[in-house]
Amino acid sequence: MTAHTKRAPTGRTRRAAATPAPLRKDAARSRTAILAAARELFGSGGDVPMYAIGRRAGVGQATLYRHFADRSAIVAAIGREHLERIEQLEAAHRDDDAVLVVLRAAAETLVSIHDLVGILRRDAALAPVLGELRARMRAVLERALERSRPSDTLRDDVATDDLVLVLNMVNGALEGVTVRPRRAAAAARALELALNGLTADRIAA
Amino acid sequence: MTAHTKRAPTGRTRRAAATPAPLRKDAARSRTAILAAARELFGSGGDVPMYAIGRRAGVGQATLYRHFADRSAIVAAIGREHLERIEQLEAAHRDDDAVLVVLRAAAETLVSIHDLVGILRRDAALAPVLGELRARMRAVLERALERSRPSDTLRDDVATDDLVLVLNMVNGALEGVTVRPRRAAAAARALELALNGLTADRIAA
Repeated sequence: MTAHTKRAPTGRTRRAAATPAPLRKDAARSRTAILAAARELFGSGGDVPMYAIGRRAGVGQATLYRHFADRSAIVAAIGREHLERIEQLEAAHRDDDAVLVVLRAAAETLVSIHDLVGILRRDAALAPVLGELRARMRAVLERALERSRPSDTLRDDVATDDLVLVLNMVNGALEGVTVRPRRAAAAARALELALNGLTADRIAA
Repeated sequence: MTAHTKRAPTGRTRRAAATPAPLRKDAARSRTAILAAARELFGSGGDVPMYAIGRRAGVGQATLYRHFADRSAIVAAIGREHLERIEQLEAAHRDDDAVLVVLRAAAETLVSIHDLVGILRRDAALAPVLGELRARMRAVLERALERSRPSDTLRDDVATDDLVLVLNMVNGALEGVTVRPRRAAAAARALELALNGLTADRIAA
C-alpha cells in the first residue's frame, strides 16, 4: 500500500525479536483480513477464486498476491495456524489427560475448518501441505498419548493410529452437516462415542 | 444388438411376472458389465468419463447410452443396488441384533463404495439420488433399531440419528485410506469404537 518497505519495530513487535522479522503493521493487517475473508468464503462451500478472497478482504489484487501466490498458499496458511494452536495447547498442558484436551481441541478445529480439510484433500497441489499437517497432528497426538500412559485416561492398547482414526471419524460425522451449531453438536457426539470406545473400562479392570 | 425387441419369457423369467419386465439376457449382461466396469473405475479415484466405462465394459457407446443416459445414472444405479441389498438383509433378519447386522453390512458397503459416496456428495446433479439413498438408509436403521428395542443390544437412549452419525464416522475413517484391506480394517475398527459407545453397559446395569 505504501512505498517504504521497512520500518522500525514498534514496542509491541520489538519483544518478538527472536522470532522471524514481524510484518509491518499494515501488512499484518492485510494478511489477517485476507485469511479471515478466506475462512469465511471456504466455509460457505463451493469453489473460491482468489479475486473473491481479495474483494471480501478489502485489499487490492497486488496486496493479495504479495501475501499469497495462490489459493493453495492461503489454505496452507490457515491449516498451519490451526495446527500451531493445537501444538501450543499440547505443549502447555502437562496433565495426564492432555490427550483428551488435544482431541477435543482438534475436534473443535475440524468443526471450524471442515470445508478447508475437504479442499486440502481434493486439491492435488496441496498434497504436500496435507502430508505436513497430518504428520504434525500425528506427532502431537503421539506426544500427548505417551504423556497419558502412566494414567488410565485411555486404555493401554490404544495406539496413535486409533487417535488419528478418531479424528477422521469426527470429520466424517461433519459431512453433509452445513449448519454450524449442528456441526459442533455432531463433532461432540462423535468424539464422545469414539472416546467411550477408547477409555479405560474401570469397572472390568 | 439384435433387431427383435420382445421375446417370449423363459421358464426362469416367467416366474418373475409380477416384477418389471426382465431385461433380455444380452441386455442384462451388458448392464452388469457396465456396472462392474464403473465400480472398478470409480474405485481407482479421480474423474471417470463415460467413454472409459464403456471401453472397460467392452460395450459400444450406443449400448452404453441405451442403458445409462449419463455417469450420474450409473452412480445412482450402483448406489441403489447396494442399498437394496441392505434393505433385503434387514427384512430377512428378525433377531434382536438386526441393528448390528445392518450396521456391519452398511460399514462393509462403505468400504466398497467409499469413492462412489464421494462422487454422490460432490456432484450436484446427484443431490436427489443422495437424498433418496440417505432417506432409505435412515429408514432401514430406524426399523432395525425399533426391532432391537426390547433387547439390550444398544443403550435405551440411542436414536436413529446416532446410527446415521456412526455410519458417517465409519465413512470418515476411510478418508485417505486407498488400500482396500486397510480400508476394511479401518472401517471395522471405527465401527467397533463407535459401537462401544452405543452398546448397553451390562456391567453397570
